[in-house]
Amino acid sequence: MKLLTYRYEGVERVGALRGDEVIDLSPVAASMLELIEGGPELLVEARKVVEAAAGGPALAAVELRAPIPRPRKNIICLGMNYAAHAIESLRAKGLPEKLPQHPVFFSKMPTAVNHPNAPVPLMADVSSQRDWEVELAVIIGKRGRDIPASEAYNYIFGYTILNDVSARDLQSRHHQFFYSKSLDGSAPMGPWIVTTDEIPDPHALGIRLRLNGELVQNSVTRDMIFDIPTCIATFSHGVTLEPGDIIATGTPAGVGMGMTPQRWLQAGDVMEAEIDGIGVLRNEVVA
Amino acid sequence: MKLLTYRYEGVERVGALRGDEVIDLSPVAASMLELIEGGPELLVEARKVVEAAAGGPALAAVELRAPIPRPRKNIICLGMNYAAHAIESLRAKGLPEKLPQHPVFFSKMPTAVNHPNAPVPLMADVSSQRDWEVELAVIIGKRGRDIPASEAYNYIFGYTILNDVSARDLQSRHHQFFYSKSLDGSAPMGPWIVTTDEIPDPHALGIRLRLNGELVQNSVTRDMIFDIPTCIATFSHGVTLEPGDIIATGTPAGVGMGMTPQRWLQAGDVMEAEIDGIGVLRNEVVA
Repeated sequence: MKLLTYRYEGVERVGALRGDEVIDLSPVAASMLELIEGGPELLVEARKVVEAAAGGPALAAVELRAPIPRPRKNIICLGMNYAAHAIESLRAKGLPEKLPQHPVFFSKMPTAVNHPNAPVPLMADVSSQRDWEVELAVIIGKRGRDIPASEAYNYIFGYTILNDVSARDLQSRHHQFFYSKSLDGSAPMGPWIVTTDEIPDPHALGIRLRLNGELVQNSVTRDMIFDIPTCIATFSHGVTLEPGDIIATGTPAGVGMGMTPQRWLQAGDVMEAEIDGIGVLRNEVVA
Repeated sequence: MKLLTYRYEGVERVGALRGDEVIDLSPVAASMLELIEGGPELLVEARKVVEAAAGGPALAAVELRAPIPRPRKNIICLGMNYAAHAIESLRAKGLPEKLPQHPVFFSKMPTAVNHPNAPVPLMADVSSQRDWEVELAVIIGKRGRDIPASEAYNYIFGYTILNDVSARDLQSRHHQFFYSKSLDGSAPMGPWIVTTDEIPDPHALGIRLRLNGELVQNSVTRDMIFDIPTCIATFSHGVTLEPGDIIATGTPAGVGMGMTPQRWLQAGDVMEAEIDGIGVLRNEVVA
């Protein structure tokens, strides 16, 4: 299923896409977090509602929201998790071109979450080096700690797209990535969560980003240095993961920092983050 | 006021300390987050309840909880914010002894929150280099972005103690601090929040940590490299802070990593983190 959070007739609801129609799932759950926490049983109920529904508003008639508009904790993110991107980043910073030997984790504030088709504020007074990063985001469906890699897929609820909009000047200035990745509106997410049954292999997906129509990032999720089971196993070693947790699995090469000359986001730029089997997440940068 | 979250007769409540008695504030707020979000008006109501109350259970008779047992986002933390600690850390890592020119921010997961007098799991299978870090934690009381340093104190609700229990081997291995600082139970907090009226100058407080009675950290909050208004102004530049947000302001020198030979936490170790005007946060390490 493609599960989405949307506003229609002034109300925010959770729903599912059926063809071009949005089916209201509010009889089953008040929010996406409630739906995720309901586990497989509630998902069965949701599926029944979708199948039985007479119809719903057209997708074009609703306002899409981030699938989880307000996560209950920071978004867990991977840094330098595609080899070509790790190299372009290290080169841009003048650092030795050495791939990470262990996953690099940082976080983005929940207040950074942004919505499909919503403006991303440029904040030129805060940073003059805003950059794009298309990422496959994993949504955790089941509580667990010390999750073995071999069982990691059983803990996944679904997948979505996250654009990890970054501020490169702040990233260098403050050493740790956290602040530079947490500016308000810098985590567009969506357009929906695709449940695991529709994505049997999350490492076989084309992943790309178009900037004003120009293809700037173009890779495949197979190129991750640390695959999804490894990321889940590593991070959950000593740390409890909970339903609704979001893990953004890193971005491939082709960010503005790696270009010669470097290219930074400008007001009016349109970012289209796309992953096969999920869809397109479109956001315009505004002054 | 000293505001606390506690369990009594099987119920978790928010309360205030009056002498040695705990006054139930549940008529005013269901939780500490609700009390903080109520703003100055609700605090006035709370004060009236405390003054009018006939009495309450003795402090020794209640089970203290972290003042905010489940924050709505990660805890914001400062790294290397006391000069002597920055030097001991850099030296231990064999890095150039250069003080940070800008605040270094990272985060701890909300699942890391731990309680006064509660056990801190050693997790020897996850890390063999667990370390202590007493810190003054600032509780944000008012929503704001781009907060000028000159107005920062108006955004503070109160102060508490946070022991930023760390895993030094994971900290080196994973580059970014986030994962190594997020192990379950690694953020003991409390014993209560002291409101700003009782702490006119948060930079005039003795701050120390005793390990099994031995004084290992002993400094004063005046020694922060970046003071509290600077930290709030810097982090809120582009990032909205919300009531209930927690900012841990960094630890002074005297951690185990900086000792010769290095000293790591062992099962049975008792950490007492103390800050003048707040109190003592005591936790035992357990296997």
